[in-house]
Amino acid sequence: MKKHNFSAGPCILPQSVLQKAAEAVLDFNNLNLSLIEISHRSKYFVEVMEHARNLALEHLGLQDKGYKALFLQGGASLEFLMVAYNLLEKKAAYLNTGTWSDKAIKEAKLFGEVVEVATSKSDNFNFIPKNFQIPKDADYFHCTSNNTIFGTQIHEFPESEIPMVCDMSSDIFSRQLDFSKFSLIYAGAQKNMGPAGTTLVVIKEDILGKVSRAIPSMLNYKVHIYKDSMFNTPAVFSVYVSMLTLEWLKDLGGISAIEKVNNQKAELLYNEIDRNPLFEGFVANKEDRSKMNATFNLKNDELKATFHNQLKQAGINGLNGHRSVGGYRASMYNALPLESVQVLVDVMQTVERGA
Amino acid sequence: MKKHNFSAGPCILPQSVLQKAAEAVLDFNNLNLSLIEISHRSKYFVEVMEHARNLALEHLGLQDKGYKALFLQGGASLEFLMVAYNLLEKKAAYLNTGTWSDKAIKEAKLFGEVVEVATSKSDNFNFIPKNFQIPKDADYFHCTSNNTIFGTQIHEFPESEIPMVCDMSSDIFSRQLDFSKFSLIYAGAQKNMGPAGTTLVVIKEDILGKVSRAIPSMLNYKVHIYKDSMFNTPAVFSVYVSMLTLEWLKDLGGISAIEKVNNQKAELLYNEIDRNPLFEGFVANKEDRSKMNATFNLKNDELKATFHNQLKQAGINGLNGHRSVGGYRASMYNALPLESVQVLVDVMQTVERGA
Repeated sequence: MKKHNFSAGPCILPQSVLQKAAEAVLDFNNLNLSLIEISHRSKYFVEVMEHARNLALEHLGLQDKGYKALFLQGGASLEFLMVAYNLLEKKAAYLNTGTWSDKAIKEAKLFGEVVEVATSKSDNFNFIPKNFQIPKDADYFHCTSNNTIFGTQIHEFPESEIPMVCDMSSDIFSRQLDFSKFSLIYAGAQKNMGPAGTTLVVIKEDILGKVSRAIPSMLNYKVHIYKDSMFNTPAVFSVYVSMLTLEWLKDLGGISAIEKVNNQKAELLYNEIDRNPLFEGFVANKEDRSKMNATFNLKNDELKATFHNQLKQAGINGLNGHRSVGGYRASMYNALPLESVQVLVDVMQTVERGA
Repeated sequence: MKKHNFSAGPCILPQSVLQKAAEAVLDFNNLNLSLIEISHRSKYFVEVMEHARNLALEHLGLQDKGYKALFLQGGASLEFLMVAYNLLEKKAAYLNTGTWSDKAIKEAKLFGEVVEVATSKSDNFNFIPKNFQIPKDADYFHCTSNNTIFGTQIHEFPESEIPMVCDMSSDIFSRQLDFSKFSLIYAGAQKNMGPAGTTLVVIKEDILGKVSRAIPSMLNYKVHIYKDSMFNTPAVFSVYVSMLTLEWLKDLGGISAIEKVNNQKAELLYNEIDRNPLFEGFVANKEDRSKMNATFNLKNDELKATFHNQLKQAGINGLNGHRSVGGYRASMYNALPLESVQVLVDVMQTVERGA
């Protein structure tokens, strides 16, 4: 029996996608060859790459709007420096909402001045700062849409007169947004999109070519756009499985359909966290709670062993909180069924009854 | 029936490895979770990463000699600039033996002076230059051990008084060398090691920390060493399948065992290219021929259709030459069985008999 997988990432993927991925590893498209044995320049894989790029733009409603989708390598961590390498001429503005924003800021500082428009660092990132000013003379504004570690999420994005860049690694394709407000979106695949090893970058072409520094080929978005995301051998398997997941999402009805389920899952769990006297949420303002990652504590340490035992018996995996927050973290990405959240809630209630 | 897969990369992998990889995509280690659904920080994946790193050093005979093995992302193309970022303070020496050397040189020039010690570019890289001088005041000497596109291979490496860096993407683990002569070896996985998406970097630690520039975290070898190759989420699937391939090689008897088979395969094919009057090899000096990629032409264009038809009937895949050379290229990586080369030779002889 499959586990109820609340892992923060790499994380749960749709079972039908895993089935197709396993088949492709043995025989891809009845070619009598494995997916991972064929040339990335073969028409079979070029079709995969093009289809994945198109599906990404389609889901985001960004087709024919001057955007390109790329599947690169290196995760969000490489994007932290690529964003600055390609866009930071003099000054950039960053919102600091968690560990990943913090790391993005660190890398950007190597390339120019960084203005931190607001931060919740001194409160261990337990809220999303609001009402900050974005300097109009900065080259771009950078934010992180969802903070996997702390369980916070931006629910209202600021209006920005300068290009807005967003790390959406942990909530892309989970909710409807006006994605055309963003000039650059990037996301490591390993939450809502596919296996680790590829990064989706969606970029408005007209923001490029404005910095004076020389950019190494592999770090240059223009090079990757010009080469249709095949400047070098891509992470074939990860791109293919991402394509399968984007197809799965389309068959379900797209982002608007999955958003309804995601809202149900989040409501179910947060209601229990708030109702059940044994537990408390980590995030200070309920309005900032993430619908992807719910962080919470068991107030009474003596009940830990019982709780862990019950989780294990129920087949729940990946509920440990990140070391910088402690407690528990339930990650409820697109592929996690509502039933898994119900099983978790049942366990929380069982522990309550026994206490 | 499986094809005879002569693809230049991504390329053939052992069938037993593909079988295990497909199983792990459905259920890893009987965890009731897919390999690509578990945390990279879980003990299960940490064990995979450590085992893969140890196996790489073991095969190369570099354990306990001051080397570290890393599995990074971005392919050899990212290493082109990482090598220079980490090692090039003033001047570097490069041997130019093909397209990949040429690209490595282009990226290095962004970071300092590059001395091309020798090149075969004006002869379309159809030989390996020899008897060149390596300037002793350069920070490092860089070469490419095997030139996939042109079918040449360095069979005798120069003595170098400065650190020797080698791109071994297309022949690593295929032949015995004194690997301790190299201070840094890198190789994209997608030839002899695994699926595209991960890059093996083997590095002698004492060559690091000597440049004055600030290095972004993701491009800094020291950061990756300090984080045991887990600074960020690695390409989990590609690392796992690389580990399986390195285990497969160990079970076979290691590099020395596979080298014997590789020699037999190369001898069989080159003998036929030289004997069969319909064909001619591309490489000018026989001594420079690659044992991994044999490049050759069919002299009479009118026989092309017959040859292609025979190849198809025999189930032979991936024999087209690269556009910069034309003709044919038979890539005979570790996982290609001797029987596949025999099938190709049989086809060449069938065409000869019919001509």
